[in-house]
Amino acid sequence: MVVAYVGTRYAGWQVQPGRPTIQGVLEDRLSRLLNEKVSLAGAGRTDSGVHALGQVASFSTEGRIPLPGLRRGLNARLPEDIRVMQATEASPAFHARSDARGKDYRYRFAVGEVVSPFVAPFVWPVRGRPDVLAMRRAARAFEGRHDFTSLAPADCELDDRVRTLGPIAVDDLGDEIVLRVRGDGFLRHMIRTLAGTLLEAGLHRRDPESMPAVLEARDRRAAGVRAPAKGLVLVRVQYDEEAACASS
Amino acid sequence: MVVAYVGTRYAGWQVQPGRPTIQGVLEDRLSRLLNEKVSLAGAGRTDSGVHALGQVASFSTEGRIPLPGLRRGLNARLPEDIRVMQATEASPAFHARSDARGKDYRYRFAVGEVVSPFVAPFVWPVRGRPDVLAMRRAARAFEGRHDFTSLAPADCELDDRVRTLGPIAVDDLGDEIVLRVRGDGFLRHMIRTLAGTLLEAGLHRRDPESMPAVLEARDRRAAGVRAPAKGLVLVRVQYDEEAACASS
Repeated sequence: MVVAYVGTRYAGWQVQPGRPTIQGVLEDRLSRLLNEKVSLAGAGRTDSGVHALGQVASFSTEGRIPLPGLRRGLNARLPEDIRVMQATEASPAFHARSDARGKDYRYRFAVGEVVSPFVAPFVWPVRGRPDVLAMRRAARAFEGRHDFTSLAPADCELDDRVRTLGPIAVDDLGDEIVLRVRGDGFLRHMIRTLAGTLLEAGLHRRDPESMPAVLEARDRRAAGVRAPAKGLVLVRVQYDEEAACASS
Repeated sequence: MVVAYVGTRYAGWQVQPGRPTIQGVLEDRLSRLLNEKVSLAGAGRTDSGVHALGQVASFSTEGRIPLPGLRRGLNARLPEDIRVMQATEASPAFHARSDARGKDYRYRFAVGEVVSPFVAPFVWPVRGRPDVLAMRRAARAFEGRHDFTSLAPADCELDDRVRTLGPIAVDDLGDEIVLRVRGDGFLRHMIRTLAGTLLEAGLHRRDPESMPAVLEARDRRAAGVRAPAKGLVLVRVQYDEEAACASS
């Protein structure tokens, strides 16, 4: 399933006892609809407050409900801030997380004098007028294959912190600066710490040429502030073509 | 002041004891900022749940706080779903409601299979695929000067229910149908009842040619269902040029 959500009200994707989560709400409604206990695998474990346009979640069922009925029935039961945009039949071996080849994220900075209440839940309001060219120069250091320890929480327990990022776009839309990044995977808080660090370069608090040293330090303290969750959205998850076979 | 708001959490513009209203929140923050009791006049008394991109509110003050500081100070105190977009000095006689020459409203119908959670708070999801040409034909009957009693609540106590509407646009945006209407004034619920009635014409539940009879009946029962508040937004208020003299 391709799932979109406004993350504001939720403690992130992953089920946590006693707190509302996207996965928790989806599993609950899906289990009731199919009358069996359903466990979802999500492609990206988005943090508390992060949004998604194209999260992907997979599950197995013995149920024989047709796909359009599944999508409609589930949407009828879901709160309006979570929506199943598409439902597709996949091969039995398909797993939304382990089969994901890459993910696209977007981070939005609001740079206008006043932030419209209609976009406020989805942007980080920034004082001053960041230098977009400096942000682009700084971004270049993070493209390609690197150990991203400096962008992950200090208590990150993963052994392998090497990830590969594609070209990083920093677009100036006038009232907004939008960061677009594709990667084969991301460490926790990695994009938000990247966003905060690039902004500091844009505000001339950091030299864009100092970014390779940030990575080389392999130390969270070398990077900048972590940008707030509400500016981040999971846009799309990439898979190899054969992963899916029928869609609705 | 030009004020934008997401109306979802509010019981409308106008102050009501014990309920959160836009006017109530603005007056409270403004009074604290200026350290004097401030009363606001709003151009349009938007209903509970209705949004605004360009509501206009006026007030008098002895305070000498500069306009940019007023806007910034007020926005710093306001919740993020209410924003002062502009603050302008007006002539002492200016009154946001009585000086308004006209208002632009927009009503959004969602017609796609699935409504994105990002637009859900701002659209009326509609089943089926309305006939936009029938909606346009039906809309024509309401343009110009008419007694709009049929579109107002049955208990409407106003003596004068004659209003003048400009050309009514019905735009097909694919996933949305958007109704745009400008008028010199509107009765309570008038645009929402117009939206519901036009939709019924679009779904072929009413003959577009029967609309003049709806108006002639001067009876609320002759019109269609009242569309929900969340699809409606006050876009702009028109004034004569000389009303304002300095802006920030």
